[in-house]
Amino acid sequence: MAKVAVVMGSTSDMPVMEDAIEILKGFDIEVEVDIVSAHRTPEKLFDFGKTAHEKGIQVIIAGAGGAAHLPGMLASLSPLPVIGVPVKSSNSIDGWDSVLSILQMPGGVPVATVALNGAKNAGILAAQIIGATDKCIQDKIVVYKEGLKQKVIEGAKSLNK
Amino acid sequence: MAKVAVVMGSTSDMPVMEDAIEILKGFDIEVEVDIVSAHRTPEKLFDFGKTAHEKGIQVIIAGAGGAAHLPGMLASLSPLPVIGVPVKSSNSIDGWDSVLSILQMPGGVPVATVALNGAKNAGILAAQIIGATDKCIQDKIVVYKEGLKQKVIEGAKSLNK
Amino acid sequence: MAKVAVVMGSTSDMPVMEDAIEILKGFDIEVEVDIVSAHRTPEKLFDFGKTAHEKGIQVIIAGAGGAAHLPGMLASLSPLPVIGVPVKSSNSIDGWDSVLSILQMPGGVPVATVALNGAKNAGILAAQIIGATDKCIQDKIVVYKEGLKQKVIEGAKSLNK
Amino acid sequence: MAKVAVVMGSTSDMPVMEDAIEILKGFDIEVEVDIVSAHRTPEKLFDFGKTAHEKGIQVIIAGAGGAAHLPGMLASLSPLPVIGVPVKSSNSIDGWDSVLSILQMPGGVPVATVALNGAKNAGILAAQIIGATDKCIQDKIVVYKEGLKQKVIEGAKSLNK
Amino acid sequence: MAKVAVVMGSTSDMPVMEDAIEILKGFDIEVEVDIVSAHRTPEKLFDFGKTAHEKGIQVIIAGAGGAAHLPGMLASLSPLPVIGVPVKSSNSIDGWDSVLSILQMPGGVPVATVALNGAKNAGILAAQIIGATDKCIQDKIVVYKEGLKQKVIEGAKSLNK
Amino acid sequence: MAKVAVVMGSTSDMPVMEDAIEILKGFDIEVEVDIVSAHRTPEKLFDFGKTAHEKGIQVIIAGAGGAAHLPGMLASLSPLPVIGVPVKSSNSIDGWDSVLSILQMPGGVPVATVALNGAKNAGILAAQIIGATDKCIQDKIVVYKEGLKQKVIEGAKSLNK
Amino acid sequence: MAKVAVVMGSTSDMPVMEDAIEILKGFDIEVEVDIVSAHRTPEKLFDFGKTAHEKGIQVIIAGAGGAAHLPGMLASLSPLPVIGVPVKSSNSIDGWDSVLSILQMPGGVPVATVALNGAKNAGILAAQIIGATDKCIQDKIVVYKEGLKQKVIEGAKSLNK
Amino acid sequence: MAKVAVVMGSTSDMPVMEDAIEILKGFDIEVEVDIVSAHRTPEKLFDFGKTAHEKGIQVIIAGAGGAAHLPGMLASLSPLPVIGVPVKSSNSIDGWDSVLSILQMPGGVPVATVALNGAKNAGILAAQIIGATDKCIQDKIVVYKEGLKQKVIEGAKSLNK
Repeated sequence: MAKVAVVMGSTSDMPVMEDAIEILKGFDIEVEVDIVSAHRTPEKLFDFGKTAHEKGIQVIIAGAGGAAHLPGMLASLSPLPVIGVPVKSSNSIDGWDSVLSILQMPGGVPVATVALNGAKNAGILAAQIIGATDKCIQDKIVVYKEGLKQKVIEGAKSLNK
Repeated sequence: MAKVAVVMGSTSDMPVMEDAIEILKGFDIEVEVDIVSAHRTPEKLFDFGKTAHEKGIQVIIAGAGGAAHLPGMLASLSPLPVIGVPVKSSNSIDGWDSVLSILQMPGGVPVATVALNGAKNAGILAAQIIGATDKCIQDKIVVYKEGLKQKVIEGAKSLNK
Repeated sequence: MAKVAVVMGSTSDMPVMEDAIEILKGFDIEVEVDIVSAHRTPEKLFDFGKTAHEKGIQVIIAGAGGAAHLPGMLASLSPLPVIGVPVKSSNSIDGWDSVLSILQMPGGVPVATVALNGAKNAGILAAQIIGATDKCIQDKIVVYKEGLKQKVIEGAKSLNK
Repeated sequence: MAKVAVVMGSTSDMPVMEDAIEILKGFDIEVEVDIVSAHRTPEKLFDFGKTAHEKGIQVIIAGAGGAAHLPGMLASLSPLPVIGVPVKSSNSIDGWDSVLSILQMPGGVPVATVALNGAKNAGILAAQIIGATDKCIQDKIVVYKEGLKQKVIEGAKSLNK
Repeated sequence: MAKVAVVMGSTSDMPVMEDAIEILKGFDIEVEVDIVSAHRTPEKLFDFGKTAHEKGIQVIIAGAGGAAHLPGMLASLSPLPVIGVPVKSSNSIDGWDSVLSILQMPGGVPVATVALNGAKNAGILAAQIIGATDKCIQDKIVVYKEGLKQKVIEGAKSLNK
Repeated sequence: MAKVAVVMGSTSDMPVMEDAIEILKGFDIEVEVDIVSAHRTPEKLFDFGKTAHEKGIQVIIAGAGGAAHLPGMLASLSPLPVIGVPVKSSNSIDGWDSVLSILQMPGGVPVATVALNGAKNAGILAAQIIGATDKCIQDKIVVYKEGLKQKVIEGAKSLNK
Repeated sequence: MAKVAVVMGSTSDMPVMEDAIEILKGFDIEVEVDIVSAHRTPEKLFDFGKTAHEKGIQVIIAGAGGAAHLPGMLASLSPLPVIGVPVKSSNSIDGWDSVLSILQMPGGVPVATVALNGAKNAGILAAQIIGATDKCIQDKIVVYKEGLKQKVIEGAKSLNK
Repeated sequence: MAKVAVVMGSTSDMPVMEDAIEILKGFDIEVEVDIVSAHRTPEKLFDFGKTAHEKGIQVIIAGAGGAAHLPGMLASLSPLPVIGVPVKSSNSIDGWDSVLSILQMPGGVPVATVALNGAKNAGILAAQIIGATDKCIQDKIVVYKEGLKQKVIEGAKSLNK
């Protein structure tokens, strides 16, 4: 069974990050959740990053705010694809700090960045990554996208009533 | 054999995007390259997006500048993971336009965004995505990252001579 | 009778977009309203964009937030003038994302962009576009502008009382 | 015969603005070109704005840089649709000043803003506005867009050779 | 007796602009207040700008939000010093639009720009301008500045109690 | 005879600031030029700021780049009107730093800010300030503005030849 | 005993700045608190800056908002290390003004800038500066960092319950 | 003898960072230079950060560009004061990415950030930090600042010749 790790820098990121967990569970993908702070638990960061791919994890989703170093450091330590979620924390400069700290990684060490507070999309992207080689998950994504479409079409209908 | 599509909005994006192609070839991943303009060839966009996953493609890398709609529209049309490369084109407002047009996708339709002009990282990320379930590619990534490390260590040595 | 289409990416854009509808009705211009999501209903986007000019529509007003692709994709698909309304949605980066995604279109495919949340101005601009060749509508715009002036003059009077 | 006015704040804007003139001539639309500075020739601005619609002009294209007031003031004075072209002048703060000075018009007085230095698109938009009620011009736009498509397709072909 | 005009684009700017009026009255400077909208009452703008210096006005303070053209157009029309107050209106993009529309005037036509919502400072600056040649007003400014100092010193004292 | 001080933080600001000197000389206004660095010569800053109004100076023009403190500190020390010129120095973040450091002064201590590198406008503004009570200078400004107009009209003529 | 001065431009900065005071007291470092306004009490600024290092102060922490000149002017006047805290005041342009006014100091006069509203970190940094040569304080910092780690680990535990 | 470490993410940062080394040598402070990449040599980062304070280093200066994680990760690992130098690398988004990645550190883990490319100031700040408890170094800083003053005064003299 596929496995995705959802980690974040602080428990205060959970209200944003739980969207990723929910989406992944909806796709029947196993989720491992943890708090790993690049700045306060660097040893845990190291252990986690170095060993994630050996523990059956296929994709890492990492959320952090401000000068967000967690996604980039995990990308440094792990050969796995890392999805970064910029979290708009208090005292953030409108979210620009976390967006740029996650997005603008140097050549050689990518982070797959999603929109500000876009944990839901991080979950979908992780499923798509697994679905790239897992036909069953890919089919679920096709169904999921069909569901998005139906909601819009129903919204349009209600409008014209 | 794994297959990645590298598409871009214009031949003028090629100097940036060829970094992705080169990296992927270095990982022995098959690459399909095409010009698909969301704004000038919408029918080709549709055909490409709708059928990519049926043609053996596992990951799409899409580069575009300005109000860059190509990555997001492919993410709309395809169940595959789409990696977006913001290209800093002439008349761009310092690259902010392509970064935000690619990154800030709505809930349900993610694009895995990399740094401005970060085509090299898009190639590595595509390899990591394939490597999530392909041990052979993942091993190559481990080797690649080791190579990055060695270069830095050699740079440090030359410095202290 | 003149006809303008007002489309938006989501029913949640309606509180902003209804200003356009109201203005157009005030000018006795027929309005067709629909929900068309570039990212969730790409087929509907295609059908709408390809056929709008054949259904008697003269101007398209399209509102969307975040990485707003609806106005630009309609401009790609239709020969009609497309007016884009950047909507400041939740999780937007202060509206910059929708402004730049709509404004910075590549050469060949313009979108007539109005201010952030400027649906009212989109309605007036659509009327002006029709008024460019329809003397009756142009006269109504002259009257409308006169009304704006009177309100300011009355405000000035009340101030000096 | 349709008529579009192309005005700009300074002769130094001509290298950018001539793209609009060229496009319009390609569509066989009559073009009237003039220098009108909101800040240095306010009387000419007034005369031009007040009388343009009486002289057979159907659309105004106005380009200006920095704190660009020309498009907005013409929109204040004329009932015609005004297309604003933000010009990236020297000492501009990366073009943000002209973009925001043109785009962020108050309710009641729209300016149809195109991309930074997007004079070409201003010309196409003016043609689309005339084409909204002139089938002959609309057909030319359809042909023009077909030409854009062919160039991309040829670019794609040359790539795969 | 010295005379300063305080004008603004809309009665909705009054809550910000009344700080200027209050300060000027405190300096016993005559104030003339009016609503002049560059975009809705261009004729009034013209009359006001052309005649202000003939009516005994020595300084113009002009406040406006969004694509704020009032201060710059008055500076175009009048030989008087014009102080511009960027007002942070609703739907403003964080105030950047009014700041840049007022500040970035082209060579030849300056606007003395103060901080966002800085109407109080506009009033003080107007007094300083009159004080440049009026010893009595300059003395009042010296006293005013002394008052600012005393308040800080008292604040510091209360802190250390 | 009227007197204006033009000060700057470094001799490297001279290429920008000499525009102010030239303009003032053109208006027959006496100019005193000096280098005063808020950060490197704080004592000179203090002496200059405290005594300027006692030495017959009527207006201070201060130019500085980066975290530009010179205009604001002179406004703190002097009762005279201070005009601030943000200079785009090397290593500036696109000029935003000097613009915001000069513009965003706290309540009580205004700086009359002009455009980035807008030393020419600073000179004109100083002349307008003196002209507020000096009819002779004001007349020269009227003539100067007439000259600006003629240049535009000639430019327009050459265009239509 | 080590001594740190915590100064701020206004009593209204205290809610932000008290975090620095609290942290320093927790490290048993003596704190001297004062209100020093660069713009309203320039003489006090001068006295304070010139004499701080003679009064046993080892580090200065200075907080200010808007066009924040206090940290930079203290750095100009004192040989001590100055830590600048950008405070997000009302009417700030999202904090960018105070961040850039403090950070972008010219060559020769550094300010150690911390995050927006980051007074807590200013306190820790001051302790680290003292700890650079005071083993006892450095040990306390090691303990403090250990405490941060424990909190994250406990947060992680509570999550997995 | 005092010791400062100057580390950077890549040899390409050396042209910027050598200003710090030169300044420190001028103050007779021992400098240790190394290349440590947070993203390419995470193990070296860990070793360096964990042991720096045990090797006699008193201050760490760390320079990096883009999503600059080196200064923040060293601040995470070491109890020493860490000075961060944002380097404007190629493909940076105008330097904003490195500025915000270094400045906006979370509570508990400060980085003393200096201006973009401000390595010279980083060197001076390190000397000031050592000078906080080392009277000899502090005296050298007083002399250094006197030198800055003399250069400005000479510049002013040459101007008035």
